[in-house]
Amino acid sequence: MIDIIHRIGINAPAARVYEALTSIESLAGWWTEEVEGQEQVGGKIEFIFRSKNGDLKGKMVMEVKELNSPRYVRWQCTEGPDEWVGTDITFRLSEQDNQTIVLFGHRNWREAVEFTAHCSMKWSVFLLSLRDYVKTGKGQPSPYDLKIDNWN
Amino acid sequence: MIDIIHRIGINAPAARVYEALTSIESLAGWWTEEVEGQEQVGGKIEFIFRSKNGDLKGKMVMEVKELNSPRYVRWQCTEGPDEWVGTDITFRLSEQDNQTIVLFGHRNWREAVEFTAHCSMKWSVFLLSLRDYVKTGKGQPSPYDLKIDNWN
Repeated sequence: MIDIIHRIGINAPAARVYEALTSIESLAGWWTEEVEGQEQVGGKIEFIFRSKNGDLKGKMVMEVKELNSPRYVRWQCTEGPDEWVGTDITFRLSEQDNQTIVLFGHRNWREAVEFTAHCSMKWSVFLLSLRDYVKTGKGQPSPYDLKIDNWN
Repeated sequence: MIDIIHRIGINAPAARVYEALTSIESLAGWWTEEVEGQEQVGGKIEFIFRSKNGDLKGKMVMEVKELNSPRYVRWQCTEGPDEWVGTDITFRLSEQDNQTIVLFGHRNWREAVEFTAHCSMKWSVFLLSLRDYVKTGKGQPSPYDLKIDNWN
């Protein structure tokens, strides 16, 4: 199995980062503005991505599989691009050197394809958006996200 | 074997991006200011990373293994962190939709450790620096790179 993994540090308490990963309102502040669903374990959260002119670009549904405040979040993708369905998204938090370290994983891809490389780069950009959101209250959620290539 | 892979598009001809990946002067413009060596196949290029106050943070030596202008570059790490020695760095370029698409790989890690996640995030930041360098002539090479966590 193939995993995308990233590590980022955020100058904020783990509880604040955990909140940004688990509340619908905060998810809209750094990943995509169009999000709705149930936050608790067993709930499903729908993330919709559009271009700035409103065209639908993609939709993902994540089932919340594990929540361990303020240390761990795991979602499983139940709808979305073929390559994403069945994959896990994990966030493991720890406090080190006055930062919250986020160990991010998008795990269990069936194979490493060019779309995996696109998503790896894109997750980096959204993790920087998460950091900005936690530190300043303002991230760059879709459709205001930094475009990285001809696929987004 | 574990691979870090990223995909980024740059609004410039492939030849320009290829130049930024293969000339010592350009490598100093987006990865680290302190770089020297031989650009041709079989040559070795030394990259030194320091903090802003001059403390040595790391040193990597890459042997240039393949050059196929303007399509492909492969280095192999011959000195550096234990986890890097023997790994390959690859850049595959193609032109699509008026962009040069860079398919980046840092390949053949022995295992996926937390340092791998750090490096994956850090490579994303340096690929954004590469894009800025190609587009504007000014990137964010070390020691002016965006710091991502408590390890850098």
